[in-house]
Amino acid sequence: MIQNIIDGKTKPVGSLGKLEALALKIALIQGSDQPCLRRPTMLVFAADHGLADEGVSLYPKEVTRQMVMNFLQGGAAINVFCKQNGIHLKVVDAGVDFDFPPDTGLIQAKIAQGSRNILQEPAMSREECIRAMEEGKRLVALEHDQGCNVIGFGEMGIGNTSAASLLMHKYTGLDLVSCTGRGTGHNDRGLAAKLVVLKEAAGKYSPKNPLDVLSTFGGLEIAMMCGAMLEAGERNMLIMVDGFISSSAILAASFLKKDICEQAIFCHVSGETGHRAMLKYLKAEPVVDLGLRLGEGTGVALVYPLLKSAVNFLNEMASFESAGISDKKV
Amino acid sequence: MIQNIIDGKTKPVGSLGKLEALALKIALIQGSDQPCLRRPTMLVFAADHGLADEGVSLYPKEVTRQMVMNFLQGGAAINVFCKQNGIHLKVVDAGVDFDFPPDTGLIQAKIAQGSRNILQEPAMSREECIRAMEEGKRLVALEHDQGCNVIGFGEMGIGNTSAASLLMHKYTGLDLVSCTGRGTGHNDRGLAAKLVVLKEAAGKYSPKNPLDVLSTFGGLEIAMMCGAMLEAGERNMLIMVDGFISSSAILAASFLKKDICEQAIFCHVSGETGHRAMLKYLKAEPVVDLGLRLGEGTGVALVYPLLKSAVNFLNEMASFESAGISDKKV
Repeated sequence: MIQNIIDGKTKPVGSLGKLEALALKIALIQGSDQPCLRRPTMLVFAADHGLADEGVSLYPKEVTRQMVMNFLQGGAAINVFCKQNGIHLKVVDAGVDFDFPPDTGLIQAKIAQGSRNILQEPAMSREECIRAMEEGKRLVALEHDQGCNVIGFGEMGIGNTSAASLLMHKYTGLDLVSCTGRGTGHNDRGLAAKLVVLKEAAGKYSPKNPLDVLSTFGGLEIAMMCGAMLEAGERNMLIMVDGFISSSAILAASFLKKDICEQAIFCHVSGETGHRAMLKYLKAEPVVDLGLRLGEGTGVALVYPLLKSAVNFLNEMASFESAGISDKKV
Repeated sequence: MIQNIIDGKTKPVGSLGKLEALALKIALIQGSDQPCLRRPTMLVFAADHGLADEGVSLYPKEVTRQMVMNFLQGGAAINVFCKQNGIHLKVVDAGVDFDFPPDTGLIQAKIAQGSRNILQEPAMSREECIRAMEEGKRLVALEHDQGCNVIGFGEMGIGNTSAASLLMHKYTGLDLVSCTGRGTGHNDRGLAAKLVVLKEAAGKYSPKNPLDVLSTFGGLEIAMMCGAMLEAGERNMLIMVDGFISSSAILAASFLKKDICEQAIFCHVSGETGHRAMLKYLKAEPVVDLGLRLGEGTGVALVYPLLKSAVNFLNEMASFESAGISDKKV
């Protein structure tokens, strides 16, 4: 039994804390007492949000495409952390309102030039949402076919904390205020204005099933991430969840595949209001709390070495028996 | 100004949370807006404790030497994590009650065959304590001369949570109960028995100055670590502090060099009772809380990639200006 192997390592029982829980979880997912992490990959999904026109974000909408270019040029935080930690980084255009030049390395999976303004109509049609999910599945299948068994999910999309807050509110039933945070850095006034918009949006629609919640209030990158996570689950891959937006995608996925979270590592709890409550709702224990609120998958990329450490201690440490070390006196 | 450079990176202000504080601290220590971490090194100091004869630990005393052999053979947790994260590992015999064979890679700095049983006499003489500190200084100087500018401190010594608890109690004035934990895993009864011993030991001596506190209640590995930290401070190196024992050494050092903690990163808060209160006393903010209580420097080795990430984002990320990205609307 894996717990016995962990307990037999040359350390006091339980003394590696959360790393022991991680090792156990990864071993159980892989059904092996010698788990391995192969070809770690980060998919960053980018899309625009019609709701950004209502001023819900501190940054203008064009920052989505500008940051995608920054990813492609290697200048963003996620580039730095993936490079440092040996994670393959792929950037996916799920629905940015811009036509990128060819040959940039960007993965073209655009469903539309952004989602729609929810104050006027649902963010996506049901059909668009399903297409986004299917694209996500296809992309994960490709990575898995290349040998990846551990995959992280990040995002970029001006306005997407608003979509995530609305999804959280609708899926969990928690009140909108406790689901809504400052995003990229609103002050009190900006947060209040954001809440006015979200309340109006939330009151406009009452979707009847989980898929319609996602298509009505989500975004193209969130829907694509949701599909991608479902495929990763289907293929028994280890899912690394980032912050508030990434978690909203697995929240949606959990309404479509009940046990999806059993394959997920919630890498961190972000500084964005609502994330802690969302993790609690999902019964998820985050690995670290670094006060991050950047997105892009940065929390995943930063925490990945700890996942490696969990696997490595299980595979490489000596046991009391093999090292000839005296066990406890009692 | 370094804070301006951090704020100008392509991310919302403050969104890298604790990593931003780390980057700022490292840059200020090095006096450079392009800090670097060179030849990261972990010194693990091992020693025996006379107080172990009183049954304060769940493990027998010979585990100290057995674990040192395990370090030398590469089978311990600290080996695995240092190897993974590119940290040079050096194991130092500060005072193990065993004569190790030659040519094992062990650094010989033995002051005595362990410290004495505090119930009978002070753990060390003043002279032994000073010699231990001098050895620590010498070892750090050697590493620094080889190009190391970031150094972690770990330990192994059956009975050393007891020494650390006594030091904490004497230096901080906090009551002994809140300074004393379960060590390698005592149950309630074992903890109560440990407390009886520590109370008796604490009541026996009233040393008048910080050095005498260290020599009376400390241990050879703690004194050596304390000296090593002081030298690292003197040489403007970045000090990576591990858990409860490692922190007790810098606590002692802080009574000898007031501002030493300004050069220290407190890598984690351990699961050992007392560590959180000790960090609070030192006004130290730990990077992570992983529920570790293993020692050996494992918390340092696990957290080191996050320090690298802090330095890397500062050095490698694009700025809003360089990437041509729109700043906030307000």
